[in-house]
Amino acid sequence: MTQNIYDDPAFFAGYSQLGRSVDGLAGAAEWPALQAMLPPLHGLKVVDLGCGYGWFSRWAREHGAASVLGLDVSTKMLERAAQMTRDTAITYARADLEQLDLPDAAFDLAYSSLTLHYIENLPGLLQRVWQALAPGASLVFSIEHPIYMASMQPGWVIAANGRKTWPVDNYQVEGPRRTNWLAEGVIKQHRTIGTLLNLLIGAGFTITHVEDWGPTAAQVATRPELAEERERPMMLLVSARR
Amino acid sequence: MTQNIYDDPAFFAGYSQLGRSVDGLAGAAEWPALQAMLPPLHGLKVVDLGCGYGWFSRWAREHGAASVLGLDVSTKMLERAAQMTRDTAITYARADLEQLDLPDAAFDLAYSSLTLHYIENLPGLLQRVWQALAPGASLVFSIEHPIYMASMQPGWVIAANGRKTWPVDNYQVEGPRRTNWLAEGVIKQHRTIGTLLNLLIGAGFTITHVEDWGPTAAQVATRPELAEERERPMMLLVSARR
Repeated sequence: MTQNIYDDPAFFAGYSQLGRSVDGLAGAAEWPALQAMLPPLHGLKVVDLGCGYGWFSRWAREHGAASVLGLDVSTKMLERAAQMTRDTAITYARADLEQLDLPDAAFDLAYSSLTLHYIENLPGLLQRVWQALAPGASLVFSIEHPIYMASMQPGWVIAANGRKTWPVDNYQVEGPRRTNWLAEGVIKQHRTIGTLLNLLIGAGFTITHVEDWGPTAAQVATRPELAEERERPMMLLVSARR
Repeated sequence: MTQNIYDDPAFFAGYSQLGRSVDGLAGAAEWPALQAMLPPLHGLKVVDLGCGYGWFSRWAREHGAASVLGLDVSTKMLERAAQMTRDTAITYARADLEQLDLPDAAFDLAYSSLTLHYIENLPGLLQRVWQALAPGASLVFSIEHPIYMASMQPGWVIAANGRKTWPVDNYQVEGPRRTNWLAEGVIKQHRTIGTLLNLLIGAGFTITHVEDWGPTAAQVATRPELAEERERPMMLLVSARR
């Protein structure tokens, strides 16, 4: 089972205070780019893999989705998500994405925000998602960028002359990365970009768009702290078609 | 026109002494990985974009290709290439890949080794290559990795404690990068991985394999200097299908 760090009290307390937790999609700087990669939602059956507080699940219903199944491993997140809606076309359920069980060809869109880098058995998950999608259906996801995850000691490097760079090391060494983000010992799974894309292709997907997300000039003007996200890619956004 | 740095005497002298110039494909550590991405060559009409000394062009003919058109902007490279074969099914010609003119649906394989990062009008080139390929034909290429190219000051960063990392900065700032490799002022064009892959998709290609090349353990054992290539991706290998 994937490490359920979101049910760790310290992690949960910290996560609850992030912009993306308080403000939902509007608090996630990559959301406009990810949104632009979505198909028209009207009438679609959607599965939200790692739904968290359910911000996307609710947004999808508000934008015409026929139904949404929001899955997460964290009971705390699911409780909060359930408290925020009375929409009976949204179902929240606990699921371990390491061994997901979904009906075949049941969904028109699989969506996942910043979840897949926690998954050890990503090949298995992508195969099951492919099977759970109808022909022509879409998978749209964000994931921590391999360049952001690769280093064994991630964090800006400041040289004696003040030069600030993002360090890359151990890029080819795939596997777990232990970081201290909100809590100690958060485990992520580093894969190269090639491995990630080839897993999609191997599962049967056609890649339709890839984006190393970075903020727009307008975003940086409004939120100057985003400027450093132009220096190194923090997230990878991908869309693919079954 | 693309900067024709290969006809610069200093650059050419330096380039002539690289392992990949002296030993050909066997001197290029990424060749086994790139070779594994090629379709069976028997009977194929091949175009080699940036053929250099023609090592691949000759190899393709030795492995069954029906014909090879080797194109390069450097007359010095083409002269050397021509001296190394009497095979009349190989044609070497000077071409500026910025404004390539090829017949429609005339090739079964387009190959390019470490050339596309010099091209300013890559969208135009990829569209023309797509048109020049027969339906079902392949494009296989290597390119300097965007992570290798992004920084304005590429080169390993050694911290006071001896930690060695590859610096990433200015990743989202696409456009020219001026480096001093073999000669001063070599101009390369940095693009994000997303931009590169989306250009392929936009031109009509289906991406079939992506590989951030790194050396195998056996290669590092034989050539210890390759070990640092496991730390950061230097090349991206891509195959795509029309």
